[in-house]
Amino acid sequence: MSAVPSSPVPTGFEQAFRPRSVAVIGASDDPSRISGRALHYLRRAGYRGSVYPVNHQRATVQGLPAYPSLDAVPDVPDMALICLPARLLRQAVADCVAKGVGAAVVYAAGFAETGEQGQALQEELAETARRGNLRLFGPNCLGLLHAASGFVGTFSSAFDEAIPTGGNVAVVSQSGAYGGHLAYLCRRRNIDVGYWVSTGNEAGTDVADCVHWLALQDDVSVILAYAEGVRDGERLRTALAVAHERRKPVVFMKVGSSDSGAAAARSHTASLAGSDSVYDALFRQYGVHRARTTQEQVDLAYACSRGVLPAGRGLGIVTVSGGFGVQLCDAAERYGLEVAGLPEAARARLREINPMGSDDNPCDTTAGWLNDMSLITDTYRVMYAEGDYDSVIGSFTMLPDSPTYGEGIKEAIRKGTADFMDRPTVLCMEARPEVVRSYEEAGFLVYDDSERAVAALDGLARLREGFERPLPAPAGKDTPRRELPAGPFSEAAAQRLLASAGVPFPLSRVVTSAREAAEAAASTGFPAVMKIVSPDIAHKTEIGGVLLGVADAEAAAAAFTELTARAAAACPEARVEGVLVARTAPRGVEVIVGARRDPVFGPVVVFGTGGVRAELYRDVATRVGAVDRDEALRMIAETRGHALLTGFRGAPEADVDALADLLVTVSAFAVAHADRIEAVELNPVVVLAAGQGVLALDALLLEREGTS
Amino acid sequence: MSAVPSSPVPTGFEQAFRPRSVAVIGASDDPSRISGRALHYLRRAGYRGSVYPVNHQRATVQGLPAYPSLDAVPDVPDMALICLPARLLRQAVADCVAKGVGAAVVYAAGFAETGEQGQALQEELAETARRGNLRLFGPNCLGLLHAASGFVGTFSSAFDEAIPTGGNVAVVSQSGAYGGHLAYLCRRRNIDVGYWVSTGNEAGTDVADCVHWLALQDDVSVILAYAEGVRDGERLRTALAVAHERRKPVVFMKVGSSDSGAAAARSHTASLAGSDSVYDALFRQYGVHRARTTQEQVDLAYACSRGVLPAGRGLGIVTVSGGFGVQLCDAAERYGLEVAGLPEAARARLREINPMGSDDNPCDTTAGWLNDMSLITDTYRVMYAEGDYDSVIGSFTMLPDSPTYGEGIKEAIRKGTADFMDRPTVLCMEARPEVVRSYEEAGFLVYDDSERAVAALDGLARLREGFERPLPAPAGKDTPRRELPAGPFSEAAAQRLLASAGVPFPLSRVVTSAREAAEAAASTGFPAVMKIVSPDIAHKTEIGGVLLGVADAEAAAAAFTELTARAAAACPEARVEGVLVARTAPRGVEVIVGARRDPVFGPVVVFGTGGVRAELYRDVATRVGAVDRDEALRMIAETRGHALLTGFRGAPEADVDALADLLVTVSAFAVAHADRIEAVELNPVVVLAAGQGVLALDALLLEREGTS
Repeated sequence: MSAVPSSPVPTGFEQAFRPRSVAVIGASDDPSRISGRALHYLRRAGYRGSVYPVNHQRATVQGLPAYPSLDAVPDVPDMALICLPARLLRQAVADCVAKGVGAAVVYAAGFAETGEQGQALQEELAETARRGNLRLFGPNCLGLLHAASGFVGTFSSAFDEAIPTGGNVAVVSQSGAYGGHLAYLCRRRNIDVGYWVSTGNEAGTDVADCVHWLALQDDVSVILAYAEGVRDGERLRTALAVAHERRKPVVFMKVGSSDSGAAAARSHTASLAGSDSVYDALFRQYGVHRARTTQEQVDLAYACSRGVLPAGRGLGIVTVSGGFGVQLCDAAERYGLEVAGLPEAARARLREINPMGSDDNPCDTTAGWLNDMSLITDTYRVMYAEGDYDSVIGSFTMLPDSPTYGEGIKEAIRKGTADFMDRPTVLCMEARPEVVRSYEEAGFLVYDDSERAVAALDGLARLREGFERPLPAPAGKDTPRRELPAGPFSEAAAQRLLASAGVPFPLSRVVTSAREAAEAAASTGFPAVMKIVSPDIAHKTEIGGVLLGVADAEAAAAAFTELTARAAAACPEARVEGVLVARTAPRGVEVIVGARRDPVFGPVVVFGTGGVRAELYRDVATRVGAVDRDEALRMIAETRGHALLTGFRGAPEADVDALADLLVTVSAFAVAHADRIEAVELNPVVVLAAGQGVLALDALLLEREGTS
Repeated sequence: MSAVPSSPVPTGFEQAFRPRSVAVIGASDDPSRISGRALHYLRRAGYRGSVYPVNHQRATVQGLPAYPSLDAVPDVPDMALICLPARLLRQAVADCVAKGVGAAVVYAAGFAETGEQGQALQEELAETARRGNLRLFGPNCLGLLHAASGFVGTFSSAFDEAIPTGGNVAVVSQSGAYGGHLAYLCRRRNIDVGYWVSTGNEAGTDVADCVHWLALQDDVSVILAYAEGVRDGERLRTALAVAHERRKPVVFMKVGSSDSGAAAARSHTASLAGSDSVYDALFRQYGVHRARTTQEQVDLAYACSRGVLPAGRGLGIVTVSGGFGVQLCDAAERYGLEVAGLPEAARARLREINPMGSDDNPCDTTAGWLNDMSLITDTYRVMYAEGDYDSVIGSFTMLPDSPTYGEGIKEAIRKGTADFMDRPTVLCMEARPEVVRSYEEAGFLVYDDSERAVAALDGLARLREGFERPLPAPAGKDTPRRELPAGPFSEAAAQRLLASAGVPFPLSRVVTSAREAAEAAASTGFPAVMKIVSPDIAHKTEIGGVLLGVADAEAAAAAFTELTARAAAACPEARVEGVLVARTAPRGVEVIVGARRDPVFGPVVVFGTGGVRAELYRDVATRVGAVDRDEALRMIAETRGHALLTGFRGAPEADVDALADLLVTVSAFAVAHADRIEAVELNPVVVLAAGQGVLALDALLLEREGTS
């Protein structure tokens, strides 16, 4: 597996979302029934293509002429909505293929989620569709829609109240219920959904396919995705790479991070949940925002739908009461936005504009503007023009709702921000929906909670930062991939293989006699470390197979005898290849560097500081696939323990460059040998002072089962 | 300062909140003016006491007979609302005192927030009021109200739309604007505010006084507090102790945690912000919930206003779609709620009730209930009666809003929970306000976001846990308080003083000659540690004043000579008292134990694991005042590094009991000597294996400035 996105653009989506003609197979005359609702929606939404109800029991369905079979339809429909129970689906899908239909939605449940038999039937449908070049959505899904075409191929009750008429927000959800919930929340928040699709059991089409195709659509500005599990890591990486390239924000909720949640996700879908931290890594690498809550997802979608990303993290704050400024500062610190002060000239200008207000950022205007709204206009101009903040949050509480002041405030801010529409102007305010709408139409983002406003701005900044970072490099290709010998691997073998890939170890030799041990120790240097070498003994310390601080040649000879005796006593069956003699490494900062194979995403590289503490404080950085030097440096910088490497509390600066090189080496090795290696672990690695390099003191190399 | 809450119950509050008669000094005839609005509100709210407008220019004000002066009022009003500018306040407050008024609100700005002159005037008013036994609110505040009495002594525009008519929620805010914002949000959320008060500059009455008095009111169920700074730590502790004793939840937003926020808070109020982590500690000790965001504060107030706290952290989950169950599980894990499975008998019962649904917790009912609502009733009964969960969250998306199903779902849940009204039943749902209200009236807590619902349940559980923990013990009293000698203190002096208070140090001696050093080392044992002893050298390592691993008597003698020479070279002026000789401590887990004086709250005890890492990972536990053994054990357990003491990854169990004793000793010492000691620091302390005790390897004792 390579790190290069490689899945092709999925076909059949054009027919699915913007069909010229649609067959509704099993269409019911009763619009309140599931099998009648899609047809009803189609007509309500003003779909202008041809609609062919297929129903062998009726001449008309909901007023349209019906056809006894798909074959009888006098056209090749782009799309088929199949409203039939599971037992009739084998035939229905075969009919679609025979007719040459481009895409089909299967709503019915009763497939993989019910057990092996359903799983088999689902695989059969997928295979039929794949061979017949039919784009299949579902089964066990709620369908899809494209608002601008008036095409509504879903029976979700989320659209009962209103059918979207167009918009630049796309919703992709494995769960139809969650997707419907998102659509409902978007409508309440004035977020216009243009595309909506639920993927259900994902027999033929998964969330990744949808994200891929949607990212290519010009009328999509942001993609909201929801998944409980992902089965094809490569497809998801391709989709996210396309979204990154096209600068389409993806706000992804991947659930199942908890133990109980993951169990619930497994029982709910037929998906295999990858380890949760791997998703964190993947999303970070591709500049995807991972939403942890629905509120966060909708809040950021709202911000993205306006299409303006801030250039940086500088934040200006304007309030009508100082207390709100304090809260916004606290929130900005939590989210890493910078509330810098104004230059002196700008402060003087603020004093001139508003002698009663504060003259810095955050700026508390106090109540002076009640008499003169131009004061608000001028304050905003100072913040943007002279403070040069990347965005400004204004906290106006309930005042915009006031019949006396509401319009005036809006106009005053509009004038003050008119020259800076390329920066997000955010208002924290409480008002009736129509007032909120009018502020939005004036170009502002409106939140009713200051923390959420700051979180959304942080989200926008992160998205921009993500777009500006290069995608994971197609590394691993140039790594000399040599055939690995058969495993399991002793530590000495692991060291040898990793050393030849470029991992630095202390000078060492494997010896097979006491005399050789004494000679080897004398040549590598004292004090020495000595360890038993056996492919059959993974945990050497547990059997006393490691001796530290061996002081001289005599002690080295004695240590050899002792170690081989201990191994023979504890593991009489083990093949003992000898004893490893190494010089004790100089002092430095201890870190852990490793890689492991994720069943969905392949090799994952991991870095952490400290031995047990890396685990205790969960202070690790993870990446999917091979990392280049820049990414390795970012990984190191991302851990809190990073400070230990850069002179914290007077410690010397450590060789971070050499450490980054080691991460590149280990990740490339893991990628090049993904077919054979389950895990690589160097623990500890000692990072020496700047310019002195790194040394791996222990190596573990685990083989994938059944590969040698 | 002692740890015992000692401030008396504040007087004059009864007259302030439930006055029999009110004078409005400077009342305006124009109800839209600030000086006219309180009078207008009073009349709108149907206040039944006597109202006396004081206005020397008019015979009537807003239709009421006016009096030319307070003196002319034919009654002694309980309360005076003073609507006059700052320059007239000296006289107005004196008039109130002369008349014998019980309480007064001063709205005007222009005091401490404007500089020294205003500060002086403010202090003068406070002093006049204090001597005259007048309860003074403000200046620079928006006043107060008590809904049940119809007494509205505020001009806040937050009550323009509606004046509260009664409720069990109390709002106390330093910032009138924030307080008004809270009142507005509460109304929107069907949270009935009974008491509301803004304290402004707090010349005579602070947030603590208000919390204290409100906690004593039977018609208060929860107190929402907001402060930017607290000046009297003892008064706040008393108030929180009273609230704890009366089991009144306090949901406190203390802002100013960020650097920029703290600066903004200082410029906004005349308060001195204590260090932020001290507030965390204080609130934890008193069972107060610290809200970080307004949304969190209102969400928890809402939950508290219903008056039901869960008995524990066990959570049942019922959903109409599996995906929502996964999200709720993820959120429960983040917030430490436990989603345990059902017993087998209960699972069998669920299979019987609903063969299509899932048969465990979380329970996805799927769509079976559409035909038979009793299925929902029975599922809830199983969750409570057989699962015995402390609360149940149900996720019903938009279904309760459905004209077809909404009523049925509500009735079904009501029946299923009727026998369990002592447990919080929470619904995640989206619906029109009137539907939400009807669900609330049926006894449910309604949230529109699952994460926020889980956070609120965690908040309720925390409050209960806080009420069940004893308050900080009145410790420090029994500690033998001996006079400390004059400082500064050398390490040897610090060791001596702390050792006599009960802190264990390795056997050591201070010596003054090379010969003595050799003897001392031989008697304390090898390898030895030797350190220079001087009250003038605080950072010994920086001048090479510490030698480790001194191997024998000869080396000890040489070390003495070396150390004194280094001290003489680096600090020729320093008084050198000799050299400390100690045995090298056995290996163990290194921790840090200390205490420091907070300017607002006095002694604060701190515990952390690891040396620099405690700081790096901010992995410390802090408490205000003296801690007892149980609290010390909780402090230790609260750090993540705690695992290192309890056998993490095969390490031996450390002597946590001895460590807890040390924390008790250090905190008692700091409290007993609070008048003299600025900081105590033992770093490192080595925690030996269980039963072997602890040893402090280094001691630092800093004197308060100007105290010796």
